[in-house]
Amino acid sequence: MEQLRIPGPTPCPKEVLQAMSRQMINHRGPEFTKMLNNVTAKLKQFFQTKGDVFLLTGSGTGGLEAAIVNTLSPGDKVLSVSIGVFGERFATIAQQFGADVVPLKFEWGKAADADAVGKALEAEPKIKAVLVTHNETSTGVTNDLGAISSVVKQFDKLLLVDAISSLGSINLPVDDWHCDIVVTGSQKGWMVPPGLAMVSVSEKAWQAHASAKMPRFYWDFTKAKKYLEKGETPWTPAISVVFALDVSLDMLLKEGLDNIFARQARLGQATRDGVKSLGLSLFADEKYASNTVTAVATSNGLDIKKMRQILREEHQVVLAGGQQSLDGKIFRIGHLGWVNEDDIKEVISKIKIVLPQAGFISST
Amino acid sequence: MEQLRIPGPTPCPKEVLQAMSRQMINHRGPEFTKMLNNVTAKLKQFFQTKGDVFLLTGSGTGGLEAAIVNTLSPGDKVLSVSIGVFGERFATIAQQFGADVVPLKFEWGKAADADAVGKALEAEPKIKAVLVTHNETSTGVTNDLGAISSVVKQFDKLLLVDAISSLGSINLPVDDWHCDIVVTGSQKGWMVPPGLAMVSVSEKAWQAHASAKMPRFYWDFTKAKKYLEKGETPWTPAISVVFALDVSLDMLLKEGLDNIFARQARLGQATRDGVKSLGLSLFADEKYASNTVTAVATSNGLDIKKMRQILREEHQVVLAGGQQSLDGKIFRIGHLGWVNEDDIKEVISKIKIVLPQAGFISST
Repeated sequence: MEQLRIPGPTPCPKEVLQAMSRQMINHRGPEFTKMLNNVTAKLKQFFQTKGDVFLLTGSGTGGLEAAIVNTLSPGDKVLSVSIGVFGERFATIAQQFGADVVPLKFEWGKAADADAVGKALEAEPKIKAVLVTHNETSTGVTNDLGAISSVVKQFDKLLLVDAISSLGSINLPVDDWHCDIVVTGSQKGWMVPPGLAMVSVSEKAWQAHASAKMPRFYWDFTKAKKYLEKGETPWTPAISVVFALDVSLDMLLKEGLDNIFARQARLGQATRDGVKSLGLSLFADEKYASNTVTAVATSNGLDIKKMRQILREEHQVVLAGGQQSLDGKIFRIGHLGWVNEDDIKEVISKIKIVLPQAGFISST
Repeated sequence: MEQLRIPGPTPCPKEVLQAMSRQMINHRGPEFTKMLNNVTAKLKQFFQTKGDVFLLTGSGTGGLEAAIVNTLSPGDKVLSVSIGVFGERFATIAQQFGADVVPLKFEWGKAADADAVGKALEAEPKIKAVLVTHNETSTGVTNDLGAISSVVKQFDKLLLVDAISSLGSINLPVDDWHCDIVVTGSQKGWMVPPGLAMVSVSEKAWQAHASAKMPRFYWDFTKAKKYLEKGETPWTPAISVVFALDVSLDMLLKEGLDNIFARQARLGQATRDGVKSLGLSLFADEKYASNTVTAVATSNGLDIKKMRQILREEHQVVLAGGQQSLDGKIFRIGHLGWVNEDDIKEVISKIKIVLPQAGFISST
């Protein structure tokens, strides 16, 4: 079987794929309502929130757009805490809808510094919201969101979080950390095909929403809430993905949140150890290395494009390349969702075979 | 088996459901690129266009939002030709994003009058675009889009079309009728689960896009085009729905466009004849009655809610109710996608059984 080791979509278990093939039902009927209510209740356990959680039919990026347009007005000052491609994307969305973005960028491969966030908020009292990426998929770095959220809350700002590739895999207690909007996507640690974004909305986010003037219709949380109260979604949802999520959430709850986080930590460590054992270097600052995706820097003549091609064509191992300025400079191994230690061992052993064929000269 | 006879989602054939359960692949890899290019080429045959066609991950309503934000600027005057709930929705989206909407409403159950469209355009030369619903799902009426488009083109206006519940089922030659944006959704005549909107973009729409200032990111056609040129989508797409669409389009192409349109016409006629044979009245003006959805008016004591409930619980027949002001006043039978004459006969015979139980007193 193919080892799809990109940071989403991830492979899905058989039970989840079977659920994808269920016949259609009425999305305005009692069977769907029951499922939607169940799925929402289960998701709240993973978000660790008593607030609202909505399913939006779209990609994770749609969820980020929803976070912005539901809480902000054109001209609002927002602090963009960015450590990579997805941090930049979040800021760009805010900018496109008229926010006044104050950038706070950190070197790619490093985590954001909570003290620097505090200084930026002190320097600019008019900032209304802080945008932050929990797990930066492009560099394989997990921010210390607990520390950042403490600072943001000292200043009483709105905290909008891209947790697309972390939530459900890496601990993120939404209420304890006072996160106002948190966004994730079905194709990540949830072991489900893409098509749904899942978002949480805090009481403070609802207050911001009440006066937020960015134009919105499809992503409007007022509509999402009104329809969820009767067990529906405002627009026809990706029903099959909801079927699949219903099944996968049961599997994940059976494993238990703490066990999942521990498994992800083991898999992250195993991947990093494996990569280093091959004589390769981690791209990310190891103190903040992500437990869902590992970025590996090229070195010693390694042609990453060639390596990925041989792995794919001859070994059925699919890895991700680098994005934007990291194209050709790193490759990325996804290890979230439906994955175990043996999968990681297999991937590392296949990389080992291919490295010399892709120009890598071992320095040992 | 359940007779899911709502105007979407429609039941899906076995082959399509099997495709939904395929394991995930890399959406930035060669296998996905090949499939996306194939699906796009096949869709162009159904849109009857040489222009661009994009897959957007979202509901049909997301496709309508995309049509608006990609072609208009705040303050632009648009003529909203509305004959029901979905016409009103299209106008509301435009309004939310700052368009100056000139309403042209027709009585629900009737079709739009092309002459009236011409008069409205003559009266207000500053109108830039016309919004029109091809098939109004809420009332079961198909507008004479050929006639309307002739008028719109005489005035050289942009024509944005909601064809969510018509395209692929009812003839809509996009290029011949000079439609600038046309939107459909996977869960309608395409026999595929919900999760994708499909949109066509004309040369004139691209010209409007170049100066359109409504804020957009997720739905941006510039990004869709740039990524499609390399066989990708800008954001992680609903891969499973693309798998399914690839299969269903082959089935539909094998049947042939003209045969599908003829089958839909037969099914529409069979449904209308069946309804009338029960002593019930059609809600829609029969000259413009839709061949994908039939709306039936309540009469003679019929409790529609009760009828639908008994049909669902005791006969596994699922029909739709009326929306908004039509709630309780009509019910709707969907007959698009994977449906044949026997299905319609079964539905009519089940309605016949249930009518007296739901208070209907036959006048014959």
